[in-house]
Amino acid sequence: MNYDYAMNNAGTISDELRRVLIDGSVLIDDPEILPSYSKDQSQLASAGSPIALILAKSAQDIAATLKFAYARQIPVVTRGAGSGLSGGANAIEGCIIISLEKMNQVINIDRENLIARVEAGVINKDLDDQVSALGLAYLPDPASREWSTIGGNVATNAGGMCCVKYGVTAQHVRALQVVLADGEIIEIGHATKKSVTHLDLLHLIIGSEGTLGIVTEITVALAVRPKPATTLIATFKDVESAAAVVPQLISLNPSMLEIIDETTIKAVESWKPLGFEGVGAALIMQSDESPLICKSAAEIAESNGAMDATYSDDPRDSADLIAMRKLAYPALERLGVALLDDVAVPITMIAPLVRRVSEIAKKYQLLIGIFGHAGDGNMHPTIVYDHGDLAAAERAKTAFLAIIEAAQELGGTASGEHGIGSIKIESVRAETSDRLISLQRQIKSLFDPQGILNPGKKIP
Amino acid sequence: MNYDYAMNNAGTISDELRRVLIDGSVLIDDPEILPSYSKDQSQLASAGSPIALILAKSAQDIAATLKFAYARQIPVVTRGAGSGLSGGANAIEGCIIISLEKMNQVINIDRENLIARVEAGVINKDLDDQVSALGLAYLPDPASREWSTIGGNVATNAGGMCCVKYGVTAQHVRALQVVLADGEIIEIGHATKKSVTHLDLLHLIIGSEGTLGIVTEITVALAVRPKPATTLIATFKDVESAAAVVPQLISLNPSMLEIIDETTIKAVESWKPLGFEGVGAALIMQSDESPLICKSAAEIAESNGAMDATYSDDPRDSADLIAMRKLAYPALERLGVALLDDVAVPITMIAPLVRRVSEIAKKYQLLIGIFGHAGDGNMHPTIVYDHGDLAAAERAKTAFLAIIEAAQELGGTASGEHGIGSIKIESVRAETSDRLISLQRQIKSLFDPQGILNPGKKIP
Repeated sequence: MNYDYAMNNAGTISDELRRVLIDGSVLIDDPEILPSYSKDQSQLASAGSPIALILAKSAQDIAATLKFAYARQIPVVTRGAGSGLSGGANAIEGCIIISLEKMNQVINIDRENLIARVEAGVINKDLDDQVSALGLAYLPDPASREWSTIGGNVATNAGGMCCVKYGVTAQHVRALQVVLADGEIIEIGHATKKSVTHLDLLHLIIGSEGTLGIVTEITVALAVRPKPATTLIATFKDVESAAAVVPQLISLNPSMLEIIDETTIKAVESWKPLGFEGVGAALIMQSDESPLICKSAAEIAESNGAMDATYSDDPRDSADLIAMRKLAYPALERLGVALLDDVAVPITMIAPLVRRVSEIAKKYQLLIGIFGHAGDGNMHPTIVYDHGDLAAAERAKTAFLAIIEAAQELGGTASGEHGIGSIKIESVRAETSDRLISLQRQIKSLFDPQGILNPGKKIP
Repeated sequence: MNYDYAMNNAGTISDELRRVLIDGSVLIDDPEILPSYSKDQSQLASAGSPIALILAKSAQDIAATLKFAYARQIPVVTRGAGSGLSGGANAIEGCIIISLEKMNQVINIDRENLIARVEAGVINKDLDDQVSALGLAYLPDPASREWSTIGGNVATNAGGMCCVKYGVTAQHVRALQVVLADGEIIEIGHATKKSVTHLDLLHLIIGSEGTLGIVTEITVALAVRPKPATTLIATFKDVESAAAVVPQLISLNPSMLEIIDETTIKAVESWKPLGFEGVGAALIMQSDESPLICKSAAEIAESNGAMDATYSDDPRDSADLIAMRKLAYPALERLGVALLDDVAVPITMIAPLVRRVSEIAKKYQLLIGIFGHAGDGNMHPTIVYDHGDLAAAERAKTAFLAIIEAAQELGGTASGEHGIGSIKIESVRAETSDRLISLQRQIKSLFDPQGILNPGKKIP
């Protein structure tokens, strides 16, 4: 990587690069502006100083930028809305940042074939709102959906609450336009629902966090809009009791199934009392099928030791019933710096994970609240420490990694939906054979022989 | 590829190879037996003569076989039940065939986490039967499910009728044990429902038709067993009218949605009259949700020009109502040699495809019946000609390829679920950029530098 060359010739590079942009893309090298495009939302990831930012307007301009960078071995980092949580979009010293936020056009909505073609910078929720008017839905629902881009969702293979029923982003992507490292623009995948004509390079690109190519357009699958959800909240004396009910509730095919631990409940209650004092854990479930399903769920919860189970088959009550889950992260965040982790374990390991995290909290003298997608075993332990407490910040970093190790020891994985970025890159090794690392590096080299695309991210 | 070496030293190779098998795998080199393991069900694909067949009993024995073959550059072709339809499992001259049919153990069923671990030779339906007793299902339902292996389903990314609701095989696979070309055994994927820790090599292997590695064990996702399906059959005066209703029926989230053309209906009626004389096309739909859904579907069909719409919300009537679809292929097959094609088009292109296929039938003086998975646009035009008519056989081959071209021109793809194997390898080019072919070849080289795994298949 030609870091020094790039840093020492930043002005010349900007001038030259600006001249290759012909579709209205804007190059910014103002040192006042660059820092705000140099980091995502991760608390832990470091970021370098970019030499330039491209606000891209077309795949052709991105191709021209990559050809330019490829010839000079300048690293390139791609970003959407910057909502990532693993440092995946953080600048590398001397890099060019390409932002896709201005490529935000919905190109085509094909109602009969249930697909849409969008530029990568389209906000997830914006597409869903547009197709909603047609009685359709774009289902993937990462918590960031109101501001994250579909391109970013594809780069991380983003999850969300609906995955328990509808699967992750990858299951809703049919085809991609991708700019390769050397600037060639290719199309991968098929608009048809089924195809086995090619090796599956589509899913290789999805979740690759900008290391194999830059996704510029996406053909997504749409769905008939589900019925408004009805909701249940069930409380339990401890997390073991709550987790034990999860497999039975999954059999009801919920469209959401979340779990919240005692620490998080206390944080919410001390801020906005919802009447859950003394509760050891809660499950919140939604169904978009029959309104009677939450009634069945309540009966299952009650006959399995729930302290209480409240449900409503009136969708208008949903907001009240899921308030605890919506407040979980902000309630923890108001107590200090919040460090959101993301691991996935087999469903039967949710309770053991929560206990392991409690031990980690005790050992490192930290507050750690846990909530997450119980239906997938995808949990978000959230470490909280006082602003300005540097010693606690160090302990939090150690605890963050210890939680990943605990998940891996329980048969789980370092990231369920946030990605590896830079902050988990060493954690990957514990669940990855040498050969699997080597295969990933070889694939990276094949797509990006100069190693200019987001180097140092995703692959150890 | 060391074809000559292998053919000229077949006896020595068999003796040496037999000695490396330590887990009970059997090597067969009896020239009376080898031919029956040298072909799949494809009518069109040629097959070479293998030098030996391994009835494998363990991944270790497969690893030993591959190390042996790798060192000597002997091609290796893997097969399950041999139910493929594209020549993917056909022998290459001088190859070693590895059959996984004896690796047929269900290793583990984890009811709470809704996963099972199976050896690759387990028959699809056998797993479904086993988990059925627990109220669970293994959903992927290729037409061959009663005799095809899950390993073969993974190799082709097999589809089936349920895909309209439940997706193809790939959506039900979590992790794979794979023997690489050089004999290393690796694990790819995660038992958890979500993971973004690695580049997605799992889906790269799925559908790769034995060209990247040999899948020996599979972790599959199980589902809560759907309710028994209720069924609708609706008849129309022509295929355009039937196809026009498909998008509306998809909005009812059917668990099956099939279409049958006039030629096929006539073939069935002339064999086993079901009372559909004079019908130009039929749709058959199933729902495993509310029994009322088929009622809604019947109303939609009737208000959109259906000649008749018969449904039953009694699951016991299903067999009668889907008889037309079940008889479609055998009814055509009894009229001569049946050559089953497999293409996928956007749903709105089903009617244009059927018309294009009618023109092809006329041009080449062939009978071509069309039926298929309307909900996915995945159609199976079936060419019929007289046994022993060599001129018609030649025309049929040309028509087979012309159908693929027609699908591609309509925005479709060369294979929806059967795979490329050897018979469609040249057809792939029309929908594949040079760079995409080159990337696939490079990936193939990366996994299999000697090119011993199923050479000449899948990738042009």
